[in-house]
Amino acid sequence: MRDFTIDNLTEIVLEEYGSGAKDPRYKQVITSLIRHLHAFVKDVELTEEEWFKAIMFLTRTGQTCDDKRQEFILLSDTLGVSMLVDAINHPKSGKGTESTVLGPFYVKGAPEYENGASIIKQQYAGEVALVQGKVTDPDGAPITGAKLDVWQTAANGYYDVQDPTMPEDNMRGIFTTDADGNYAFVTEKPLSYSIPTDGPVGDLLRASDRHGMRPAHIHFIVSADGYESLTTHVFSDGDEYLDSDAVFATKSSLIGQYTKSEDADLAARYNLSVPFSHLQFDMGLMPSTLSS
Amino acid sequence: MRDFTIDNLTEIVLEEYGSGAKDPRYKQVITSLIRHLHAFVKDVELTEEEWFKAIMFLTRTGQTCDDKRQEFILLSDTLGVSMLVDAINHPKSGKGTESTVLGPFYVKGAPEYENGASIIKQQYAGEVALVQGKVTDPDGAPITGAKLDVWQTAANGYYDVQDPTMPEDNMRGIFTTDADGNYAFVTEKPLSYSIPTDGPVGDLLRASDRHGMRPAHIHFIVSADGYESLTTHVFSDGDEYLDSDAVFATKSSLIGQYTKSEDADLAARYNLSVPFSHLQFDMGLMPSTLSS
Repeated sequence: MRDFTIDNLTEIVLEEYGSGAKDPRYKQVITSLIRHLHAFVKDVELTEEEWFKAIMFLTRTGQTCDDKRQEFILLSDTLGVSMLVDAINHPKSGKGTESTVLGPFYVKGAPEYENGASIIKQQYAGEVALVQGKVTDPDGAPITGAKLDVWQTAANGYYDVQDPTMPEDNMRGIFTTDADGNYAFVTEKPLSYSIPTDGPVGDLLRASDRHGMRPAHIHFIVSADGYESLTTHVFSDGDEYLDSDAVFATKSSLIGQYTKSEDADLAARYNLSVPFSHLQFDMGLMPSTLSS
Repeated sequence: MRDFTIDNLTEIVLEEYGSGAKDPRYKQVITSLIRHLHAFVKDVELTEEEWFKAIMFLTRTGQTCDDKRQEFILLSDTLGVSMLVDAINHPKSGKGTESTVLGPFYVKGAPEYENGASIIKQQYAGEVALVQGKVTDPDGAPITGAKLDVWQTAANGYYDVQDPTMPEDNMRGIFTTDADGNYAFVTEKPLSYSIPTDGPVGDLLRASDRHGMRPAHIHFIVSADGYESLTTHVFSDGDEYLDSDAVFATKSSLIGQYTKSEDADLAARYNLSVPFSHLQFDMGLMPSTLSS
């Protein structure tokens, strides 16, 4: 075939990618992608200059990524794509804790700690907080040995991987539930912060006059044998950005209440001074389905 | 806003990007992009694993780009997007030479040569060819001083920027039409070759069992004051890949006829041995419109 036109090119490209695809799911995804991508180009009648800008934007986005920064995840997050994928894969069921975005700053291999340990390796001006809760199944039975991989910004507004002055693994750790399904760790109460806006995603936000702020949160990945892995946040009640999260990730059920505690027994047990900030947040996991 | 669902998220994201956009054209493009991107994700019900594969694919594509390789242009080319942009911006008018894709291997700043010079800095086993023609306006009047920026693969199947053993600017040069609108240069007759398949684009082609071959061609960007710049190829008649170009770029009007010449006068004038391969290909430019 040759001499393609606006009217026949899309169908030819679809045939080229569809007819040779060995995997039916791949075929479905690639042909849908081509159909929507071509429809976008036709709808806006993309100019050659705009096409070249798009090529350069995508190139810069890839080249902004390294082992500590994932600008394509940030792009997906800020365009609402990550939350759409979340909504499709984890529709609200009324059972188990709700999920939300992974975000671009997850790092595998955080240190494993005993329950009650602190993830603060460098302290800023934040409030020290005790975070604890129980991990249960849908019947409320405790899950022993569940792993909670937690990470958050330090109180200077940065994740460890963003700030070369910060010790590695500051504000990250993996905890394991005890025989009663309980976990506990000491941290600084998170603050709202801006996603990085010095890259291509920042240019995109500015072009639409969007802010890059996220409401304060702690990230969790909770996993246990026989259960669906849960990727979620616990947000802080009262945060001014809960309703304008740059990545559309806020869910009401994920908002935790930090209280000011004077509990001397807890303070002694977790080596804290009174008063301290205290968050109790239980996590519900769903059993794995056979298909996953 | 919080607690977004499959049903309301897209409209909220559109409102976020649309309401703050200062530039109306930017608003049109970004909102159409978001609408189509979300529709794709919903149509295929993209899984989290597929989302992560897509993130990694885009990241690798960006990171495969450097000052000599443009994998995102190659991706656009192989998905038919580049030819769609070409078709939208340069619909067949019956006037002037037709355009086709730029491709990923254009390099600005090629050496400027006198007409008749050779762009061969390192010769392989190809046939030496004389390429010449006239650049004219729509009335057939010659255009003096038009620049022809030409580039092609060497007869080993690679562009200079792909092959570190090749001299810089091998098979590239800029020529200027004379008082009669004529240009001429000496080269090796191009051969069909494979686009690079060692990167993410290669993975995509293999998943659909597509070959990466392109029919033999010489790239041209022809420009002159007062005329629209023309980005095109001249393909070689008889090439076995004319109807299965990996990037959908073949146009019948751009197929040139190489003849075997024994012309002793031409051979003497351009310092060739007889017989030599000979291509005559005229280029028609369109006057610039005021709006461009």
